[in-house]
Amino acid sequence: MSAPTTPGTAVADLLGLVAFGELLAFERMAGDARLAPDLSRRAALSEMAAAEIANYRRLADRLTALGVPPEEAMEPYVGPLQAYHDSTEPRDWAEVVTKAYVGDAITDDFMREVADALDEPDRQLVLEVLHDSRYAEFAAAEIRVAVAADARVADRLSMWARRLVGEALSQAGRVAAERATLTALIAQGDRVDVPGLFRRLTAAHTARMAAVGLNN
Amino acid sequence: MSAPTTPGTAVADLLGLVAFGELLAFERMAGDARLAPDLSRRAALSEMAAAEIANYRRLADRLTALGVPPEEAMEPYVGPLQAYHDSTEPRDWAEVVTKAYVGDAITDDFMREVADALDEPDRQLVLEVLHDSRYAEFAAAEIRVAVAADARVADRLSMWARRLVGEALSQAGRVAAERATLTALIAQGDRVDVPGLFRRLTAAHTARMAAVGLNN
Repeated sequence: MSAPTTPGTAVADLLGLVAFGELLAFERMAGDARLAPDLSRRAALSEMAAAEIANYRRLADRLTALGVPPEEAMEPYVGPLQAYHDSTEPRDWAEVVTKAYVGDAITDDFMREVADALDEPDRQLVLEVLHDSRYAEFAAAEIRVAVAADARVADRLSMWARRLVGEALSQAGRVAAERATLTALIAQGDRVDVPGLFRRLTAAHTARMAAVGLNN
Repeated sequence: MSAPTTPGTAVADLLGLVAFGELLAFERMAGDARLAPDLSRRAALSEMAAAEIANYRRLADRLTALGVPPEEAMEPYVGPLQAYHDSTEPRDWAEVVTKAYVGDAITDDFMREVADALDEPDRQLVLEVLHDSRYAEFAAAEIRVAVAADARVADRLSMWARRLVGEALSQAGRVAAERATLTALIAQGDRVDVPGLFRRLTAAHTARMAAVGLNN
């Protein structure tokens, strides 16, 4: 795949990635709701999922305004993102909330950094579709409850979180290799410092793990 | 189960039914999105699903305001509604949209009729959580496309729709038998005419089937 590296293409590439990420996160979280231990938690996860679809709509509308059909902008990411979710299917509620907590936060940190490489109004749009922090707090509280109930759960969830990050990085590498325009946007001049970006993402991830009693 | 037949209980019973119906419709439609033939249809179904969860939130808030924990009001319906969905798992996109078209419309007709037995503000709330008609139009258009592409599809979907209605009625009977307060509300004096109700629901269903080229 070697589309011309025009700014417009790079922006559509990024918005397409974020849009499909939202669409798939919606589907997976909605599906994971069946693992909730009671009806109020089940509803809470469904409401978290529904927030993603509202964000999807905003991104799809922006792509349409840029003259790019959303499905075209999303298509290149179907394989890698689907592979990520297929390889990280949660088996119980503790894994569901850990996936939401770890995965959403890393994605949000990444988007926040990359947004700096965008011009307005896309910069603002990407910043606005970041997850509401009350969802992270809900997931963090659920992890703490699971860890408090059984000390061995901390080890199991720590391993699970490492697997989530490993799978995410592996698919991110696949996207980076295939989507030159996107990589060019991220590495654009001095606007995003790539080694620094990975250092910051890792540091924030480590701090978040510690905050819920998991080890990195 | 024989809770006292106070008006408050009956209203909570009905709101609990509608709330859990929304929650489960959300989960099932979100899960069915994976059967969509392309990304725009997949997103369209996810957006239809997300509308249900917004309605769920309104009903849950009203139950809380009435002093009834939403999970308590929903609990009696978990078995029957889950059984309905488990026994009507769509196998392809045409079955997904037929289920949305047939199931949502009958449920909406039923709620519209029953709302008449409620006092304000619950009457208005139930009327407001009825499905947006553009979703019915989307589903109807998809059925017409499927039927036009292959004449045998009409027979298969007609049979599928009959099964949906059969399973729905069987679970509705189970709910009616178990929830005396709810049945009392529906049959309350001359406010809802039960035989007339079923006649009207059936007539509307038959008309809808004909509108998309299916037979009853």
